[in-house]
Amino acid sequence: MTTTYQRKLRLAAFIHHVWDEGKVDASDDYVAEAYTIRHDPGDPWDGKTLDRAGFKDRVQKSRAAFPDQKFDIQELFADGQNIVMTWLWSGTHTGDLPGFPATDRLISMSGATVYTFDNNERLTGHWQITDRLGVFQQLHRNK
Amino acid sequence: MTTTYQRKLRLAAFIHHVWDEGKVDASDDYVAEAYTIRHDPGDPWDGKTLDRAGFKDRVQKSRAAFPDQKFDIQELFADGQNIVMTWLWSGTHTGDLPGFPATDRLISMSGATVYTFDNNERLTGHWQITDRLGVFQQLHRNK
Repeated sequence: MTTTYQRKLRLAAFIHHVWDEGKVDASDDYVAEAYTIRHDPGDPWDGKTLDRAGFKDRVQKSRAAFPDQKFDIQELFADGQNIVMTWLWSGTHTGDLPGFPATDRLISMSGATVYTFDNNERLTGHWQITDRLGVFQQLHRNK
Repeated sequence: MTTTYQRKLRLAAFIHHVWDEGKVDASDDYVAEAYTIRHDPGDPWDGKTLDRAGFKDRVQKSRAAFPDQKFDIQELFADGQNIVMTWLWSGTHTGDLPGFPATDRLISMSGATVYTFDNNERLTGHWQITDRLGVFQQLHRNK
């Protein structure tokens, strides 16, 4: 029986290894065979269900513009099969984004994500809100 | 002893009476004497601690541009003294916003909010992310 505390540690390890360090193959340990992005306004994969190859592709493409990105987890809340994570994120914009060639600026972002686990402690998807406007304002400034 | 389920119902009642119906005086039943907006990018009260009069002022000013606004609660997650609420919101833009005179458009928004309760079941503040960019895109469209 996994406790909610263990599940929180597991989620934090996933964020660190896969999203911060970019060890995409480590996602096999954390992600179910079907991962659904239930709600994520502005995310290119919003509404899609990804297999493991699709999940790795999403991580790699998302990290490409900000290779040194880090999530600073604010709080973790456990209820049922879910962990809600509130977070601050930052990364240096060294790769191109659509409409925004690399600026070499340190960009920061806030967000909240509901992650859902299956009975094997693997992630089956998320529901997420990010402060996209804040990012756009940082990219546009003195462009 | 309040159960987490009762606390969820209490939060849903607060949202309905105070934010949807605009019964600001009902907030005395739900809100502590000090309410801190810990994180809420773009909110004019971000970082401030409000007394009850300040809280009512925030509700009235926030509702003025969208008097028919409704929160459609998606999910509620309880952990410790917190309830996390994921939500969709919509309202008709019949009042002026800074830079955006009334458009009479139905505007929708997504968000996630961490509400914190004291031992008297009153709200002491929140940490919130809203999809501001989505709202700006709806206001700007064919402006």
